[in-house]
Amino acid sequence: MAVQRTRRASLALQERFRSTRSLTLSLARPLSDADATVQSMPDASPAKWHLAHTSWFFETFVLRDHVAGYVPFDASYAFLFNSYYEAEGARHARDRRGMITRPSVDEVRAYRAHVDAAIIEALPTLPEVACELVSLGCQHEEQHCELLITDIQHLLHQNPLMPALFDAPSALPAPVPPPIRWITGKEGLVEIGHNGDCFAFDCEGPRHSVWLAPHALASRPVTNGEWADFIADGGYRDPRHWLADGWSWVKAEGVEAPLYWQADDAGRWHRFGLDGLRAVNPAAPVTHVSLFEADAYASWAGARLPTEAEWESAASGLDPDAGTFLDDAGAVRPRACTGADGLCQMFGDVWEWTGSAYRPYPGFRAADGAVGEYNGKFMSGQFVLRGGSCATPRGHVRASYRNFFYPHQRWQFTGVRLARDL
Amino acid sequence: MAVQRTRRASLALQERFRSTRSLTLSLARPLSDADATVQSMPDASPAKWHLAHTSWFFETFVLRDHVAGYVPFDASYAFLFNSYYEAEGARHARDRRGMITRPSVDEVRAYRAHVDAAIIEALPTLPEVACELVSLGCQHEEQHCELLITDIQHLLHQNPLMPALFDAPSALPAPVPPPIRWITGKEGLVEIGHNGDCFAFDCEGPRHSVWLAPHALASRPVTNGEWADFIADGGYRDPRHWLADGWSWVKAEGVEAPLYWQADDAGRWHRFGLDGLRAVNPAAPVTHVSLFEADAYASWAGARLPTEAEWESAASGLDPDAGTFLDDAGAVRPRACTGADGLCQMFGDVWEWTGSAYRPYPGFRAADGAVGEYNGKFMSGQFVLRGGSCATPRGHVRASYRNFFYPHQRWQFTGVRLARDL
Amino acid sequence: MAVQRTRRASLALQERFRSTRSLTLSLARPLSDADATVQSMPDASPAKWHLAHTSWFFETFVLRDHVAGYVPFDASYAFLFNSYYEAEGARHARDRRGMITRPSVDEVRAYRAHVDAAIIEALPTLPEVACELVSLGCQHEEQHCELLITDIQHLLHQNPLMPALFDAPSALPAPVPPPIRWITGKEGLVEIGHNGDCFAFDCEGPRHSVWLAPHALASRPVTNGEWADFIADGGYRDPRHWLADGWSWVKAEGVEAPLYWQADDAGRWHRFGLDGLRAVNPAAPVTHVSLFEADAYASWAGARLPTEAEWESAASGLDPDAGTFLDDAGAVRPRACTGADGLCQMFGDVWEWTGSAYRPYPGFRAADGAVGEYNGKFMSGQFVLRGGSCATPRGHVRASYRNFFYPHQRWQFTGVRLARDL
Amino acid sequence: MAVQRTRRASLALQERFRSTRSLTLSLARPLSDADATVQSMPDASPAKWHLAHTSWFFETFVLRDHVAGYVPFDASYAFLFNSYYEAEGARHARDRRGMITRPSVDEVRAYRAHVDAAIIEALPTLPEVACELVSLGCQHEEQHCELLITDIQHLLHQNPLMPALFDAPSALPAPVPPPIRWITGKEGLVEIGHNGDCFAFDCEGPRHSVWLAPHALASRPVTNGEWADFIADGGYRDPRHWLADGWSWVKAEGVEAPLYWQADDAGRWHRFGLDGLRAVNPAAPVTHVSLFEADAYASWAGARLPTEAEWESAASGLDPDAGTFLDDAGAVRPRACTGADGLCQMFGDVWEWTGSAYRPYPGFRAADGAVGEYNGKFMSGQFVLRGGSCATPRGHVRASYRNFFYPHQRWQFTGVRLARDL
Repeated sequence: MAVQRTRRASLALQERFRSTRSLTLSLARPLSDADATVQSMPDASPAKWHLAHTSWFFETFVLRDHVAGYVPFDASYAFLFNSYYEAEGARHARDRRGMITRPSVDEVRAYRAHVDAAIIEALPTLPEVACELVSLGCQHEEQHCELLITDIQHLLHQNPLMPALFDAPSALPAPVPPPIRWITGKEGLVEIGHNGDCFAFDCEGPRHSVWLAPHALASRPVTNGEWADFIADGGYRDPRHWLADGWSWVKAEGVEAPLYWQADDAGRWHRFGLDGLRAVNPAAPVTHVSLFEADAYASWAGARLPTEAEWESAASGLDPDAGTFLDDAGAVRPRACTGADGLCQMFGDVWEWTGSAYRPYPGFRAADGAVGEYNGKFMSGQFVLRGGSCATPRGHVRASYRNFFYPHQRWQFTGVRLARDL
Repeated sequence: MAVQRTRRASLALQERFRSTRSLTLSLARPLSDADATVQSMPDASPAKWHLAHTSWFFETFVLRDHVAGYVPFDASYAFLFNSYYEAEGARHARDRRGMITRPSVDEVRAYRAHVDAAIIEALPTLPEVACELVSLGCQHEEQHCELLITDIQHLLHQNPLMPALFDAPSALPAPVPPPIRWITGKEGLVEIGHNGDCFAFDCEGPRHSVWLAPHALASRPVTNGEWADFIADGGYRDPRHWLADGWSWVKAEGVEAPLYWQADDAGRWHRFGLDGLRAVNPAAPVTHVSLFEADAYASWAGARLPTEAEWESAASGLDPDAGTFLDDAGAVRPRACTGADGLCQMFGDVWEWTGSAYRPYPGFRAADGAVGEYNGKFMSGQFVLRGGSCATPRGHVRASYRNFFYPHQRWQFTGVRLARDL
Repeated sequence: MAVQRTRRASLALQERFRSTRSLTLSLARPLSDADATVQSMPDASPAKWHLAHTSWFFETFVLRDHVAGYVPFDASYAFLFNSYYEAEGARHARDRRGMITRPSVDEVRAYRAHVDAAIIEALPTLPEVACELVSLGCQHEEQHCELLITDIQHLLHQNPLMPALFDAPSALPAPVPPPIRWITGKEGLVEIGHNGDCFAFDCEGPRHSVWLAPHALASRPVTNGEWADFIADGGYRDPRHWLADGWSWVKAEGVEAPLYWQADDAGRWHRFGLDGLRAVNPAAPVTHVSLFEADAYASWAGARLPTEAEWESAASGLDPDAGTFLDDAGAVRPRACTGADGLCQMFGDVWEWTGSAYRPYPGFRAADGAVGEYNGKFMSGQFVLRGGSCATPRGHVRASYRNFFYPHQRWQFTGVRLARDL
Repeated sequence: MAVQRTRRASLALQERFRSTRSLTLSLARPLSDADATVQSMPDASPAKWHLAHTSWFFETFVLRDHVAGYVPFDASYAFLFNSYYEAEGARHARDRRGMITRPSVDEVRAYRAHVDAAIIEALPTLPEVACELVSLGCQHEEQHCELLITDIQHLLHQNPLMPALFDAPSALPAPVPPPIRWITGKEGLVEIGHNGDCFAFDCEGPRHSVWLAPHALASRPVTNGEWADFIADGGYRDPRHWLADGWSWVKAEGVEAPLYWQADDAGRWHRFGLDGLRAVNPAAPVTHVSLFEADAYASWAGARLPTEAEWESAASGLDPDAGTFLDDAGAVRPRACTGADGLCQMFGDVWEWTGSAYRPYPGFRAADGAVGEYNGKFMSGQFVLRGGSCATPRGHVRASYRNFFYPHQRWQFTGVRLARDL
């Protein structure tokens, strides 16, 4: 017999659904039809695709599967807007998503409205299993909010005019943060992984024991100012600091600085963002660096990257809400570091590359059904990032949250916290 | 001293300018901002780019160079919308034209209006040399009208939904044309090339003598029905018919039919066009075939392609206006062949591949200045096509007109007229 | 002050040096100059290069650095035969190694003899640090022996004639081994990593604690017969079993079976080896499978791959010498599995893919100097393999030995042992 | 009834066969097994392949088809050593020819001896049609002699040691030739094409009329010294001189000088050849330049390339034997230009790029059967070269001889003669 939620839980879910859907829309509001359609690289998707795909997720896994008589908005959308769910059949090639000029972004907005209305109407009587899929769909959409931000930033950067998407005041001049302090981490047997008390993705569990060697974490992420020192010291030209694959990447791509950085004629660094081209803020955490760059920096600094177990055991007592996250549509920027005691900025501001490959925890089993393709099948060749960023919707991350990207990717808000052995 | 046009000639040029600019705009009218922005392949350009680049041509070579005090609409457009004029300096990479989501298509329309007003205002007092550039700009824009049509058709075909851009009635059923008759061509010494009595591109001259061997031309282009026979006879699978480069192309690309053709489950051929997906009309000339396919078909049929001198000497007495050309915005389609006497459809309907490589005529010299890059530098690796197509603005072609594409390209309205030795 | 070895230790090292160098030569004996020169793919090197590079290692790190007055055999060889030591300066591009037709393989044999004589002469008076480099050079050369075997096998497979390099009797028919038994592994805190009692590569340490969850290992590797069942069951066509990167690889490369397998017209599997094309032996362990295939097989079988800590803790009490290793030049083949009690064939026969990414152990520091580039810089994107293979020189591996390859690579003798959670 | 040759004609053919086969062998004599096996690029073939393929030609088209009871030397060779004859069935992939380490070059020499003996034995009783194939086979082998030279030169250049294949004295210092004189060419109606009085390839005919406009040819080819001026004047950096495809090629490949040229630290030019690395001789004709370079040079010099009709009509009265051709095995080098009257060095020294695309003559029909694939199918995208080079066996070329390569290719001995309109 299908279990149903209490009315109160149902209302909470409805509120969560509404706010998530609304955040996505507001992020896309300043986008023209063209902005929303073009795909800047195979790794990125058009904003219109994000808007539609997140709706397809609710339409397919909730409305189609759990709401009798639901009529799809448009039968062709399943083919156009499936992402990578093999179990859901044929789909449009990922690297050709930018060819879909029709439906327009306005039609996709209408699609969203159609799905929203159907979900809101269905929610009070949805069985528990479908409510969980709505909840999963909200988590899924939060991830796409972040991708929408990073993908549109990447697209606008292709335009020689480098247009700003959102007005934003210049960042206030911030004092350069004090030098990094080393905070001793837990040692010996610790438990990590999700403990089941709230929503989590399958890859965050099972909770399990890990043995930690003596180590310390840096009190804060590496700043732009420190990164400029690394560049000035020839960090991008010395193969001794680099993983072999990283060095090949640096040479093949001609990498000389973080993504979106460019020097003016006087050698001053500027960076592109959704607020346009601005001077680099030396006090803020560096971002848009790859794992290869993060690892090379750590090597140059005589340190290393933390493991995900070290990171999680240190983060488990901290409040995620203390961090800089995405609260509203607008230009997103990591906040300048303060010199507070203890571990600063573990949550928010920039995703922190760990030295851990993204692999399953002991006892991991992928979820059943199509949503089981969500995480497990990506567990090769990628590294784990932790903590969320200024482009992550607030409330989305946890201490156990595992993000993952390939070591050369850097169009997300990715940064570096150092660690070292004791 | 700068020569000036008569008032009458000036009015004629103004009228020509207005009608050309208006045709382009009307072709782009049904395009959304996204339709107008996306680039479907490196060979094609976004419609927005065509709209802007044709305006940049007038703004640069006429307004900037010949109208004192002209203020450019936007200083950044010179970088964005130059095509390949090395003399005009740096420009946006050709294969990244589709990344320019801003300016929007509406801003580009405003750019067009700005340039149009400035040209109309300047025309009465423009020196002759500038008037000639206005005239050249109109010719240039007519070429881009045709590219706009073929590029947008290519883009819409990438969309699995294959949307139609223009409503169009189904073609009336047409009788299958009678078999090809062989029309004997001129023999011995003939003159070809432009004789200087009206506008022509530099590559059309100088007029010069050519010695023709005895030969005949087919009375009409090859039809879709004949092409279907070639397919059914295994034409695409037998290397003996193909040029070596053509056979490599067929195998590498998996080519089995003209571009835009697809078979339904019953094996019936359909083709995509600006009027959507329709049944192939067996009576109409085949189109969207490459030189490689044209040559293989000719070999299969025991014939060959005409040389451009054979074609031009046969066409020189015919009236271009008898052909099917682009008169207004709308779906363009080659007309079904009739069985009239003599050479049919030499002009219009489909560009006819010749067997002649695109090389300079004896005594050719490229025009001076930036517009000298218009033709001469493309004279390697391409083949000449003659006669214009249903997507060519009426009035644009002449008997001496030389179009050129690489032998694998087929997104233009390209077809085949056979020839043979006598 | 330079420490020196005892005479006895020095003689042992001399014997080790002689036997290692001799094994390499004997493997290369049946190779023609052409066999030894051609490079079949960028991942592989010519046999001549292996012969020369191993000599360059001794010449550079021992003779040049520690033997006064040593004159290099040929000054140009340092450029030709350096592999990837950035600290050692410019070198010939890795993917162009097959272009070096001169020096000939006989000249390289003379180079070997020159270096051998110089090392043998120098050994009695070498300082301890140089003796350690000789020892490292022997380990290094053993690795290249294995690569020489796998690279030459790959090359000969490119030849449509598929020539055998070594005569070898057909394998005796072996009984199909009994079904896999599950052997419970250690649980809780274990120590892994090298304990310092003999030679080991830097990446094998430091020894450290790991917490193991309850699990079991399969009693033996997966056999060819079992793999044929996987193929017959559509294993290569069902995306649900595959990592996403693995599925892309299967489709892009058209993978349908292990490397070197081909079906005859009756559908019977044969495999190519240094003994030519032979029927697949269903009783022997499967080999030449990628991590992607190993992982997909495990998923299909309802199991998973072991972690390297699980593998090492199970192997630590076993005798490596019980396994099938490379003893002499000749065709190498994994032995058919027997049904012995306990864990069979942990050492030798086939390298066993683990589910562990190749990353540094806690406290890892790369060795100083050029030889510090040996391991650490490869620690991204690769997976660990354990146990050695029939192509590994006997005595080369230990329980702590970590081999590593990219997940798509399979020209080594790589196989699969299953594991599962308890 | 099969026609047979006179005894005298038969002996002449035998002598021609022997000398041709012997020349090839002598060219390959200094090659090691490795030299003869490696393929340096897809455009080139291993020397061993040339040795075998030329024998396969005789074995297949003469011995197999015309000598009853002939037993092939090795049945697998037909697959290995067919080149591009689609009618002859499946064959080894062209770009993998360098993977065939077995048979060895000595086995291929034995194959040659086997075929030679069989042909010599069969010759006296061969029917005329087979004699013509022997004659064609000799022509075919002469072409492969030249390719063998240019391919081995390309291979040895890949080796950082740049070994010389043949000893050769330094070229005697030669006086710089006097400036180019312009020699007026024929005007009006001329006949070109082979007139049938001796052997010719099918593409050289039919003989036909061509109308020539007034023009002149340069008295000699462009020299190395003149080319160095072009380089020094920035010729490789100025897009105005280049065809668009040529400019793309220059930028993509980083071309700055002819193939095989390199500057020493003092900026002096050296070039690699079969005699090793030598100073560039300013008095000798430039060679190893592409059509793109030839065309750019001509543009820079205010001239153009000759058409093939201009070239042939000028050459038709000249004696090919006056030129520098390949007489014996050894280093081949264009001779320094002399200042003789009239047209110098029309034959031999360097192939002269013409501005004519390689297309069929009026009335051309490919020969029947497999040998019909010899020429016609290559008639797209390539340009005609005339006159032969120092690497062409003496006696091989005629005034009507048409060689052809793609416009970017330059590993043949290709040079430039200028022309201009009058």
